[in-house]
Amino acid sequence: MSRGRLPSAGFSITIRIQVPAEASAIGRLTTAVGDAGGVVTAVDVVDSDPTSVVVDLTCDTADSGHAEQVVDILEQLPGVEVRKVSDRTFLLHLGGKIEVTSKVSLRTRDELSRAYTPGVARVCLAIAANPEDARRLTIKRNTVAVVTDGSAVLGLGNLGPMAAMPVMEGKAALFKRFAGVDAWPVVLDTQDTEEIINVVRCIAPGYGGINLEDIAAPRCFEIEARLREMLDIPVFHDDQHGTAIVVLAALTNALRCVEKAIADVRVVVCGAGAAGTAIVKLLLREGVGDVVAVDRDGALHRDSPAVNPNWEWLAQNTNRENRKGSLKEVLRGADVFIGVSAPNLLSGDDIATMAPNSIVFALANPDPEVDPREARQHAAVVATGRSDQPNQINNVLAFPGVFRGMLDAHATEYTDDMGVAAARAIADTVGEEKVNPTVIVPSVFDARVAPAVAAAVRAAAKSVGGTIPVDSEVDAEVGRTAVPGF
Amino acid sequence: MSRGRLPSAGFSITIRIQVPAEASAIGRLTTAVGDAGGVVTAVDVVDSDPTSVVVDLTCDTADSGHAEQVVDILEQLPGVEVRKVSDRTFLLHLGGKIEVTSKVSLRTRDELSRAYTPGVARVCLAIAANPEDARRLTIKRNTVAVVTDGSAVLGLGNLGPMAAMPVMEGKAALFKRFAGVDAWPVVLDTQDTEEIINVVRCIAPGYGGINLEDIAAPRCFEIEARLREMLDIPVFHDDQHGTAIVVLAALTNALRCVEKAIADVRVVVCGAGAAGTAIVKLLLREGVGDVVAVDRDGALHRDSPAVNPNWEWLAQNTNRENRKGSLKEVLRGADVFIGVSAPNLLSGDDIATMAPNSIVFALANPDPEVDPREARQHAAVVATGRSDQPNQINNVLAFPGVFRGMLDAHATEYTDDMGVAAARAIADTVGEEKVNPTVIVPSVFDARVAPAVAAAVRAAAKSVGGTIPVDSEVDAEVGRTAVPGF
Repeated sequence: MSRGRLPSAGFSITIRIQVPAEASAIGRLTTAVGDAGGVVTAVDVVDSDPTSVVVDLTCDTADSGHAEQVVDILEQLPGVEVRKVSDRTFLLHLGGKIEVTSKVSLRTRDELSRAYTPGVARVCLAIAANPEDARRLTIKRNTVAVVTDGSAVLGLGNLGPMAAMPVMEGKAALFKRFAGVDAWPVVLDTQDTEEIINVVRCIAPGYGGINLEDIAAPRCFEIEARLREMLDIPVFHDDQHGTAIVVLAALTNALRCVEKAIADVRVVVCGAGAAGTAIVKLLLREGVGDVVAVDRDGALHRDSPAVNPNWEWLAQNTNRENRKGSLKEVLRGADVFIGVSAPNLLSGDDIATMAPNSIVFALANPDPEVDPREARQHAAVVATGRSDQPNQINNVLAFPGVFRGMLDAHATEYTDDMGVAAARAIADTVGEEKVNPTVIVPSVFDARVAPAVAAAVRAAAKSVGGTIPVDSEVDAEVGRTAVPGF
Repeated sequence: MSRGRLPSAGFSITIRIQVPAEASAIGRLTTAVGDAGGVVTAVDVVDSDPTSVVVDLTCDTADSGHAEQVVDILEQLPGVEVRKVSDRTFLLHLGGKIEVTSKVSLRTRDELSRAYTPGVARVCLAIAANPEDARRLTIKRNTVAVVTDGSAVLGLGNLGPMAAMPVMEGKAALFKRFAGVDAWPVVLDTQDTEEIINVVRCIAPGYGGINLEDIAAPRCFEIEARLREMLDIPVFHDDQHGTAIVVLAALTNALRCVEKAIADVRVVVCGAGAAGTAIVKLLLREGVGDVVAVDRDGALHRDSPAVNPNWEWLAQNTNRENRKGSLKEVLRGADVFIGVSAPNLLSGDDIATMAPNSIVFALANPDPEVDPREARQHAAVVATGRSDQPNQINNVLAFPGVFRGMLDAHATEYTDDMGVAAARAIADTVGEEKVNPTVIVPSVFDARVAPAVAAAVRAAAKSVGGTIPVDSEVDAEVGRTAVPGF
């Protein structure tokens, strides 16, 4: 196994193998896979004759290289013939992960006459006369554009728009699964700030919100800020705001575990990009004792070169003691490490230099800043971004509920108040009596999370004097005077 | 009834009415609706007490004004109290007509690990290494953007992007219903040619095709032409190409009915916008005897002012005898009238001046150029664009199958060969032995149409030396070497 990773369903393969018809033949296969570090999850017989058996062996592996190793080892077993290897992750992605379905029946001419011409003409005229009716009579009330330029796909870098599609489709599937939101991937064949802003401005009328995704810093800051000014629907950059919300929620409960107050802790945030900057800002807002932002050249401090406005802001507004030095140097004695940067920057020994009862959030995807098993030897609370480890800091805890709340409130912008409210709702969903070092965030499958977040966001939308929520039940009653164009 | 229209499901209303508990009370209601020209389709009792009954009376009306008349008449009946009027077309549009659904299950951590992080990272890397894999591993293989600027919504004019949404959503629902295509509305907050071109270019990577819709002429011609040059996916302007395909199909069968050859007929095309121009071009390609294009100032001829390049082209390439004059003047003696213009331009008397066994396609939406009932007094074959009349010339006969065929062929452009092939497929679906003046096109619900059109388009895509079709069944087998990134 490369880099000590654990086998996971994300690297599950199915191997079609012919073996001799001997009682011990299949046992030898599963033993070989186990010896190679794989985890067999199924063996299905697909064919047999008097002298041989064909089976589909499914097993989790640690990564692509490990999967190849497992197959090589099986091929070298005497009498074994590997016929085909299928990768279950790729099979799942064949043809894409989302589809567009009709909510209306189109079986008869009457149905067609109402949903399309001639009936639809009146609905168009009604919206032309009163544009706000688009929220009643079109999908705008429930749609979010998931927009990327493919410049910072997961932790993988600038892969471009086409290669970003699987992530955006997955996001859309999660939006629907967890909050009933209809999200659609918008992958852009441009990485020019002005062009991105203009495209999003132009496509906005069809949506109730914009979710920016995997757009590289510092470009993402300007795009978000300018679009917020221009548009009358909320603009949310999930890599910034979504991550910051879930980190604040997790930190709230982690601090409960170690009985430290946020005002007393020193936090090192590694990675001063989109996520890191948003995390720092939300921590400052919540009164963190101190926070030091670290990037490739070490801690950002008052004398750091002003590479971009974002780093300049961080250098001036963080690092109370003006610490200088490398990540490892400023980490010494810190209470909290939050990594949103790159894989394998730290070892367990580095974590050992932190303050007692330290908290480690190693969120780089897919490979954390430090192996979580090593970190757990020295830190009181460890969390990662991986779905195959405990304490997964996953944005899916935030973004579905945040958009559900904003759409239901007809919110015209996303505010930090909403973010803090969402973080508290996520933290409180665990329940104070159930919080412990392995459970600082709810499961992503906890059905209570999205409704709790949505309710908190709706309340925050109201308290900032935003728009008044519209009950969709009331909308369903179309009185004579209420129907425009009738 | 205004303008002699027939009641239709497009203008169906449900009226909640309280009447006295008398045996004849409900009969008086239905009689009154019938006398007012409405058609009662249901009476449902919703409440009653010893002295009164509350019913929901549902009836088709002719248009909005007629619906109000019907309600007024009911309100004036003695003892009758109208409580509420619901419009079934508006009710159907509440919350919009389409949604995004997940094709993958997301119930367990394993499923999440494959569909999203960490598993999805490998799929992204595979596409980055080989962009053509986007057609295997994302929704691109089956998606179409339905793009409009809202400048020519149905026959209603420049209503803007928001008011165009109900039509674009309906189109998306039809794409799925008739050809399994995943179409998504893209309504643009700009009517600038360059901006529209740029936005569509930028969003193109996520789609396998672009369907331009309800964009005003002459802007639509430049947008289409420029995008065709730029993009490696087909660009189809439904108002042009879709309409021309179905008109050619209908004309093919109408000429069979009246036993005239296309080379012998003179056609008047009224409306020299997007649809009219495309129809003229396809008729010329098919060897029509003569075609005269008419716009607001009458027939386009060699001496017409060159208002725009499109009209100039038409003036130079149509109207063999260089006829001048108004629509009514050039219609005299013509064999075929094709209207794609404005409502109520002609009367039955005008149709009577055409050649014997004339053909009238009055396609303005929602109100035809001539009342089809009047036209039928004088013409041998009459068709309209309405779904509540026989011989509906409806683009839904073409666009779903055309895109199904282009997507399956991985076509990189739409060609006129595809259009002619599609028209023949539609005409032939009726069957020569079944063609008669009231059946020149198949029903929009004829399940044979879209597959026949798709097959014809696929064949045309191959014969022009385009791309080689990929069988999706083959794609589903992911062999060891076939899986990129594995």
